[in-house]
Amino acid sequence: MKISRIEHLGIACPSIEEALPYFENVLGLKCYKVEEVADQKVKTAFLKVGDTKLELLEPTSPDSTIAKFIENNGGKGGMHHLAFKIEDGVANALAECDANGIRLIDKAPRKGADNMQIAFLHPKSTASILTELCEG
Amino acid sequence: MKISRIEHLGIACPSIEEALPYFENVLGLKCYKVEEVADQKVKTAFLKVGDTKLELLEPTSPDSTIAKFIENNGGKGGMHHLAFKIEDGVANALAECDANGIRLIDKAPRKGADNMQIAFLHPKSTASILTELCEG
Repeated sequence: MKISRIEHLGIACPSIEEALPYFENVLGLKCYKVEEVADQKVKTAFLKVGDTKLELLEPTSPDSTIAKFIENNGGKGGMHHLAFKIEDGVANALAECDANGIRLIDKAPRKGADNMQIAFLHPKSTASILTELCEG
Repeated sequence: MKISRIEHLGIACPSIEEALPYFENVLGLKCYKVEEVADQKVKTAFLKVGDTKLELLEPTSPDSTIAKFIENNGGKGGMHHLAFKIEDGVANALAECDANGIRLIDKAPRKGADNMQIAFLHPKSTASILTELCEG
């Protein structure tokens, strides 16, 4: 697969409203979009940094995977997943991963936040990092 | 403070040798340097991705902070810290953080891996993300 860059770093937050002043006022990053992703039960906020972005993720339901991550982390957020920009297609990348024995969470690309096609790889196969592949 | 990009993402690994084939052979990233940082009791491996890099961190002693992170994480590695490239000086950024009530781990810049001046901010003040500021 051809990775051009880190597309984003996903960061779980109990509250985007409480986290944003650190990112905006202390680090000087700018939030350019807030979007709710209903099927993942999260609210997202995007901040640009260099050629990549931070994606803050706040659960909108107690049964969202982000709510469970925060619960398992003692009520705190933290770095949740790492997303790579794929230049030669996520479907192709998934096929390569499968051929290399990498455990897939998604067998085929699906629609994610920010209008992208995405798929997740399982942390058991990816040095314990929940890994997202993105295109578009 | 002026952040230009993510300088690197620090990833704890029980074994760099075991982790590298995933990053190199599956993701297609290239390791361009392996370096031991004696005073942090880690071996590091760097992989370039876009305008940033991944820094794999393997403990060289059971009392390194990376060994403790892995122990607290059930023997697994994972994303450990997020480092930003600072364009207007780490000392200046630390002074700004201090004035903003951010808890500092380092009160002054010190020498880090890859020949940089670095300082860490405490995750209690940084949305639960261990955060490194880098220059040079």
